[in-house]
Parts: sequence; C-alpha cells; structure tokens
Amino acid sequence: MKFEVTILGSSSATPIFNRNPTAQALNINEHLYLIDCGEGTQQQMLRFDIKASRIDYIFISHLHGDHYLGLVGLLSSMHLNGRKKPLYLFGPPHLMEIIDLQLKYSETTLHFPLEFTVTNAKKAEVIVNNNDIIIETIPLDHRIDCTGFIFKEKKRLRKLVKEKLDELNIPAEYYTALKKGNDYTAANGVVYKNDTLTTDSAAPKAYAYCSDTLYNEQYFDQINNVTLLYHEATFLNDMLDRANDTHHTTALQAAQIALKTNAKRLLIGHFSARYKTLNELLEEARSVFPETELAIEGKTFSIE
Amino acid sequence: MKFEVTILGSSSATPIFNRNPTAQALNINEHLYLIDCGEGTQQQMLRFDIKASRIDYIFISHLHGDHYLGLVGLLSSMHLNGRKKPLYLFGPPHLMEIIDLQLKYSETTLHFPLEFTVTNAKKAEVIVNNNDIIIETIPLDHRIDCTGFIFKEKKRLRKLVKEKLDELNIPAEYYTALKKGNDYTAANGVVYKNDTLTTDSAAPKAYAYCSDTLYNEQYFDQINNVTLLYHEATFLNDMLDRANDTHHTTALQAAQIALKTNAKRLLIGHFSARYKTLNELLEEARSVFPETELAIEGKTFSIE
Repeated sequence: MKFEVTILGSSSATPIFNRNPTAQALNINEHLYLIDCGEGTQQQMLRFDIKASRIDYIFISHLHGDHYLGLVGLLSSMHLNGRKKPLYLFGPPHLMEIIDLQLKYSETTLHFPLEFTVTNAKKAEVIVNNNDIIIETIPLDHRIDCTGFIFKEKKRLRKLVKEKLDELNIPAEYYTALKKGNDYTAANGVVYKNDTLTTDSAAPKAYAYCSDTLYNEQYFDQINNVTLLYHEATFLNDMLDRANDTHHTTALQAAQIALKTNAKRLLIGHFSARYKTLNELLEEARSVFPETELAIEGKTFSIE
Repeated sequence: MKFEVTILGSSSATPIFNRNPTAQALNINEHLYLIDCGEGTQQQMLRFDIKASRIDYIFISHLHGDHYLGLVGLLSSMHLNGRKKPLYLFGPPHLMEIIDLQLKYSETTLHFPLEFTVTNAKKAEVIVNNNDIIIETIPLDHRIDCTGFIFKEKKRLRKLVKEKLDELNIPAEYYTALKKGNDYTAANGVVYKNDTLTTDSAAPKAYAYCSDTLYNEQYFDQINNVTLLYHEATFLNDMLDRANDTHHTTALQAAQIALKTNAKRLLIGHFSARYKTLNELLEEARSVFPETELAIEGKTFSIE
C-alpha cells in the first residue's frame, strides 16, 4: 500500500521567498489526506501536481493563520471546479465559524457536502477509521488549542505459507480464515496451529505529525515507535528561551523526541523565517538523531 | 512624481500555475498602496521585492475570496515583523468582521493601529486625499457589492517662466504666489498677469482599477480620460453569456470601455483559469483598443 507524504509548506509564522506556510499531502493507498493548509497551499498543489479533487480529508491542527489561511481558497476552488463528493474536515471548534462567515459574505453555497468534525485538544481521539488507516488526534502543547495527528496503517492479514498449504492440500476456501489467524482442522481431525501455516504480516506503519508544540512528554507515549515522525523544529537550540516563550520546539529537541520515542526516521519543519538556509537545523538534529531529513517543499517521503 | 503599478496577481476565481489571484501594488511618490489582496499576495510581494513595511493603504474591492484571502496573512506578518505605524484599510462593510474573527481565534492583538473605513458600493466617494493623491471609490456592478478605485494625482502648481521673472527682477518671495496663479504687481504699480509669468503644469495623471464588474455604463463618466485603465477581462467575447451570468467583462468589452472613456492606455487582467495562454485575450482587446497590455505578474506599468 502506498504511504507517503509530500511537503507543500515548511515555514513558520511568516513565509519567506520559496518557503510557504505549513501544509502536507499524504498519499495513503492513492487517497489524498491534507494536513494543515497555510496560505498558498492550493498554489503549491498546482506546482507539485497534487490534485485537489483527490483529497477527501483535511486536518487542521490549530487556528494560527500559517496553518489554515489557505483553506477557504481551496474549498472555494473545489466548489468552482465542480466538486460534488463530500469532503471531511477536522479541526478546532471555531474553524467552521470562520469558514461559514467567509462563505456567507461571498454569497457562496458550496456544491459539495463539507462534513466537519471538531477536534479535542485535551484528549486523543480516533477521528477516522476506514479500510486503509486509523487516524488519531495528538493533544499538543501550544499557545492556543492545537492537535497533531497520527496516521496508523491497519494491521494486515497474516501471510500464507504456500508450500505448507500445498503439502497439506488445504482447500482455497480456508485461506481467508487462515489469514485471519484461525487454526486448520483436517478431515481426519488433526489440528494444524495457525502459526505453522502462516507468518505474521509486517508491522503496521505509522506517520505522526506534531506541529506546533512545546517540548512536552505528554504526547510521547502516543507517538512511540512510529515509522516517520514529523516534528516542528522552529528554532536552533541557541534560541531555546524563545522556543519556550512561543511554545515551539528546537531542532535539538525534535531529535531528542525522535530518539526517546524510538522513531525510525525524523522529518523536521516549520522553520523560522530567520533561517535563510537550513543546514544548521539539520546538523543540530542529526547530531542526536542521524536519521533526520528536512521537510523541503516539493519533496516526497515514503513511510516505510 | 513616481506613479506606477506592479501586478502581483492576475487570475480570476481559481488560481492556475504561475497565475495568482488579484493584487496590485501602486507606487505613488515612493509610498505603496495595495489594491486587493488575493491568497498568496504576501508571497508574491517577497518574489517581486515589494516591501510590506512600505504599504500604508490597502483597498479591498469586494468579498470574493480571490480578492482578499491573502489579507489576514499579510496583516499577521506585518504584526510579527514589528510594524507599529498605522495601516489604513478600505473595504466592504463586513471585511473587518472577518478579520476580527480570525484574529480573535488566533489570540492575536495587532501591535499596530488598523484604521478601517467602510466603502459604499452604491455611491462614489473620496476616501483618501493626501499630499500626493486623491482616491475615490468606483461603484461597480458585480454579484455582490463591489467597488473599483480611481487614483488621481493632484493638480501641480503652475510652472515659473524663469527668464521672464529674471527680466522683471521679481523677488523670490513672490514665487509661491505666482505658482498658485496670482498676478504680480510691481513697485511702480504695473500689474503683470499670471499667465505671462507662468505656464500651466502637466495635466494630473489618473489610474482607474475596475474589477470585478459587468459591462455597465454607470461608471464610465467617472473613469473618463484616465492615463491608465485597469479593467478586468475575465473571458473572450465568445463567452459573453457566461460573462453576463457571472457579472464579468470580456476582453472586447474592456477595450470598448477604454475607447469610450478615452483612456490613454488599457491594462487587462483577472483572466479565467480556462485560458492557459493569454494571447487571444490581448489580440481581442487590441483589435478595438491597440494601446492594451496584459496585467502579467511581476510587470510594472508606469502611469504617464
């Protein structure tokens, strides 16, 4: 199953030339999930050939402008481009009030159902559970209510050991039961334990998105063992005081979090406009957690 | 006096790759005036080196998203970048309600005074009158309340005919009175008429911004004789029915308006996303009004 994330924006509060505010497009089994939608996200989608018509879910972490100001424009373009199928939107309580006000004064009635679910910044909740993925909110610690999101692949069915099945002449109609973990009882009454006929499927992969937040261990358990951790890294660690004041994280802290929570890989982003180049942020994080990459606009990272 | 306009966006409702929603930066005597502020305007300003700190006036024509969705992001960046001086904002009645709601939920209190003046879509009004310029609203005919804006240079003082003044030995302390049109009475009682001592200054230049609107003669008198007319030209004339339905103008109509109102030059913009290239729109307009240019992102047009 395809499971990858494309970075559409990586700047923090103010954009700089060639660095857009936060947005990411997740491709999960050829369905697109948009995480945050800073100003200019729809233009970034055009640039990187991410089709808005393929997005069915949008997740907004919080109501600072650099995380959602592109949303009304994107909804409006979907509407004007003839979208009819529902769009599922998840975000803080007042997000819908902001959207509704802007639609009202532009005298726009969307031609598609916009199904809004309020996120709870105090408590982790499963907000999506479909054939491909389970999505939970991650309560973060920011100046205003803010949630991250964790995307967990479903555990796949067990894998058949074909030679063994052929050897025992097990009929194909039993295969589904075997994949689900059942034992097999032959016609002669002999019971073959499932783990002699199948092997476990690969561990489910997971992608955690943590932006914006103070370093706070409250959410570490929830993101334990993820395949890819995206964590904000607004500042270098020499600006730790500023990071604390503004409820953000440093590159060093992001790496420490990846290490503590046993992430397989780390992706850092949400860079302050003060950093014209990003090498120092990357080096600082890699000094603690070598498997770190920069969330650069247009780059796609496979979650594997 | 410098008087020029830089195009920051030229697309209509939905952006396409490399064509941003509407915004224009006017430089009048080294002060910047922003007209409309579609999504991504602050990124376009970074791209074309238009300094947000130099903008003191912003004009929003109407509350369709492609004309104002970049405003809250721009205000927020001005705030974060330490702006202290007032910003004068002009726009439809509910614009401030939309801004206030978004500032409220992001828990932002702007560090600079935002002085909002409501525009009236029913009646032309002078909204700015400073040392350099007089700015009036232009009531347009769109689906929702919409105003254009006309920027008129002030009539300059008369020019002194230096040789004549020297010949008559007129003292320098009389020059200001002469520039203002007064006659000169010499010590011997002889009166010299002003027009023998000065010449008229150049005719004041004017820039008219008309977007979005149906072809409607109601505003033609107001834009008569402008130096540069920006007029929306969303469609080619083979889509006149669609233009009428959506209260927009075709390239042919824009050119007819320029001709009827005796504009010196015409600039067309607000192009539908259906036009991947713009040559046909330009040719259609030039067939009626040869002095037409395309409002292309990043291009600067002198108003002279």
